[in-house]
Amino acid sequence: MPDVTLTRVYRFASAHRLHSPHLSAAENARVYGKCNNPNGHGHNYTLEVTVGGPVDPATGFCADLPALDRAVHAGVVEHFDHHDLNTLPEFNGLVPTGEVIVQVIWKRLAAAGLPLRAVRLHETRDNVFEYREER
Amino acid sequence: MPDVTLTRVYRFASAHRLHSPHLSAAENARVYGKCNNPNGHGHNYTLEVTVGGPVDPATGFCADLPALDRAVHAGVVEHFDHHDLNTLPEFNGLVPTGEVIVQVIWKRLAAAGLPLRAVRLHETRDNVFEYREER
Amino acid sequence: MPDVTLTRVYRFASAHRLHSPHLSAAENARVYGKCNNPNGHGHNYTLEVTVGGPVDPATGFCADLPALDRAVHAGVVEHFDHHDLNTLPEFNGLVPTGEVIVQVIWKRLAAAGLPLRAVRLHETRDNVFEYREER
Amino acid sequence: MPDVTLTRVYRFASAHRLHSPHLSAAENARVYGKCNNPNGHGHNYTLEVTVGGPVDPATGFCADLPALDRAVHAGVVEHFDHHDLNTLPEFNGLVPTGEVIVQVIWKRLAAAGLPLRAVRLHETRDNVFEYREER
Amino acid sequence: MPDVTLTRVYRFASAHRLHSPHLSAAENARVYGKCNNPNGHGHNYTLEVTVGGPVDPATGFCADLPALDRAVHAGVVEHFDHHDLNTLPEFNGLVPTGEVIVQVIWKRLAAAGLPLRAVRLHETRDNVFEYREER
Amino acid sequence: MPDVTLTRVYRFASAHRLHSPHLSAAENARVYGKCNNPNGHGHNYTLEVTVGGPVDPATGFCADLPALDRAVHAGVVEHFDHHDLNTLPEFNGLVPTGEVIVQVIWKRLAAAGLPLRAVRLHETRDNVFEYREER
Repeated sequence: MPDVTLTRVYRFASAHRLHSPHLSAAENARVYGKCNNPNGHGHNYTLEVTVGGPVDPATGFCADLPALDRAVHAGVVEHFDHHDLNTLPEFNGLVPTGEVIVQVIWKRLAAAGLPLRAVRLHETRDNVFEYREER
Repeated sequence: MPDVTLTRVYRFASAHRLHSPHLSAAENARVYGKCNNPNGHGHNYTLEVTVGGPVDPATGFCADLPALDRAVHAGVVEHFDHHDLNTLPEFNGLVPTGEVIVQVIWKRLAAAGLPLRAVRLHETRDNVFEYREER
Repeated sequence: MPDVTLTRVYRFASAHRLHSPHLSAAENARVYGKCNNPNGHGHNYTLEVTVGGPVDPATGFCADLPALDRAVHAGVVEHFDHHDLNTLPEFNGLVPTGEVIVQVIWKRLAAAGLPLRAVRLHETRDNVFEYREER
Repeated sequence: MPDVTLTRVYRFASAHRLHSPHLSAAENARVYGKCNNPNGHGHNYTLEVTVGGPVDPATGFCADLPALDRAVHAGVVEHFDHHDLNTLPEFNGLVPTGEVIVQVIWKRLAAAGLPLRAVRLHETRDNVFEYREER
Repeated sequence: MPDVTLTRVYRFASAHRLHSPHLSAAENARVYGKCNNPNGHGHNYTLEVTVGGPVDPATGFCADLPALDRAVHAGVVEHFDHHDLNTLPEFNGLVPTGEVIVQVIWKRLAAAGLPLRAVRLHETRDNVFEYREER
Repeated sequence: MPDVTLTRVYRFASAHRLHSPHLSAAENARVYGKCNNPNGHGHNYTLEVTVGGPVDPATGFCADLPALDRAVHAGVVEHFDHHDLNTLPEFNGLVPTGEVIVQVIWKRLAAAGLPLRAVRLHETRDNVFEYREER
């Protein structure tokens, strides 16, 4: 029987500023535009974590939902929510673009042993980032 | 030319209670938490059925939409909507978790001959289940 | 300076069945249709509570948000979520239609001393009920 | 003939931190909780501006939509979007709560001569602020 | 006891073109911009009809929902859905702006005897029109 | 390191009529139903374009977002928005069904050199079409 997946939605509100140490000031302004404004801005991020596996015939569950919630809260939400991403150790030396954030989240959740299938991040209504590794 | 897929959205409002005959009362309470409350609760379920195929050059369609609607209404919506899932024959001996519901729906729709690609079920705003078989 | 209002959104998932003790079985079937099905069904209810008042110049707040959250959780969400509304004492002798639920919620929240402006309840995507009293 | 209203939706992404000069550090921490975290956080704000008036029989319009767009962009969006609200002159001496932001926006738009009926601000999915003056 | 209101959501997909017989070609182009393009365009319109009244103690209802559905379908949806509004007799001599459409819908529904409180029309995600008469 | 994808959302409002030159009038009426009504109708189309690639370590980006926006606006939105799809050269000899529109959009964007992963089109709230080619 193929796997079933469960996608669970989480949210956090954070500030960030896009500014790369690998680029000059002029390049930063050109590449990031208003996202490079000096004092930063912020977003209501919506995070979708997809896990999957075979369905346990005794419980009807494909994943341990309380364990998933604990891992995402401890590994992501409590760190990121109501913080400035640029000041967090998780983004030390990194530019907190959507692409980088989904990779950072994947690594943190994979390290927690979750049966990850995909990590998706809605940065705004019209911008969504997704990361998944082949299994 | 690769296939195009059409995802069509349906809805039903049902009651359910999570309680497994394979578990003790204490285990049921621990595993399902408030979803094990004695008199049940309910949800507005949103069902996304994805079908696909090559595009017919005469009609521009990749699937027979009226046939899809008939199959989903006859096989799922009319059975589940405004009913208690636990009392339905489709869930006899099963726990109506989201994982189990998407598998039951897949089987019923596959039996109707639909060119299924995926079945997704939104149980709440933040919980989504998906089932798909390799083809 | 006129008041500012704050609308805060809460959610609960409940079962209910529409069946009036004031109506015959045939009238119940005619008036409520599938909502009168014997074993009940359920919804993901979305509750919007609007409170208002002058803006406190020291805090910039028009209402005590933690007190609002406490009152709505203690008075509504903990009672209704993952329960069958028909079995609750709050609906004893009442039919738990959207109209009745918003009135019951208003009374419970008004009794808690909240500066209520409106109570709105989304029963499904397409049905919204609202109650407000003149002040 | 009564007025018709037009509600137009705008968006901006900003950082902010809730910290009042009228409160001690301990009071700020207690009143604002995580919203008082030192480096700020941010939101995708959704702004709804409602204007109204009689319908012009020649055009079928109740308001000058391009003028509305120009006023909201020049007076609000260009100032707030991708900025830290706490550093803007518009919030000098103010705490940028939702309540304060809707009042600041009302004043700026009213000064532009718009036939305002209401200003609503969605700070998160579950928090909405509204300001309207009697006419 | 004050009234409770019920808002019910309906949908129709229509074509329209904004072009006023009271304006010159140049004025039409200036006033309506791309909405004046020669062959028209279209929208998925979302219609919210709010009715209200005292709650019937026997049924728990504030309005006759099947009668509401019949009136809106017969008076609006069946006329407008999958049609070009400019070719309909209801808009003869009128420009089918959102403002005009909500007034036309109000008149048709009021004539059907509904206890109307408001008619709201979402033309796009970011444009909403509302009409209500004092009672 | 696997690719990250970025999905960007665009919108256009267009009229269309489903009528195939390969079918008789009776067949057109049967196959397309109300979508075959003579004067056409319209939709608010929501277009999701997914591109992907490795993340540039200097910028943190997986794609050139301004180039993506330019390509989609120049290749799709400016052509389709506020037009009747049936009158456009892009749909000459084609029936503008959702299936055909996503294929036309894919071809236009692929020709612009975008690293396309998927093209999805929401025609209504309940109908979504998707096209993707194996890479």
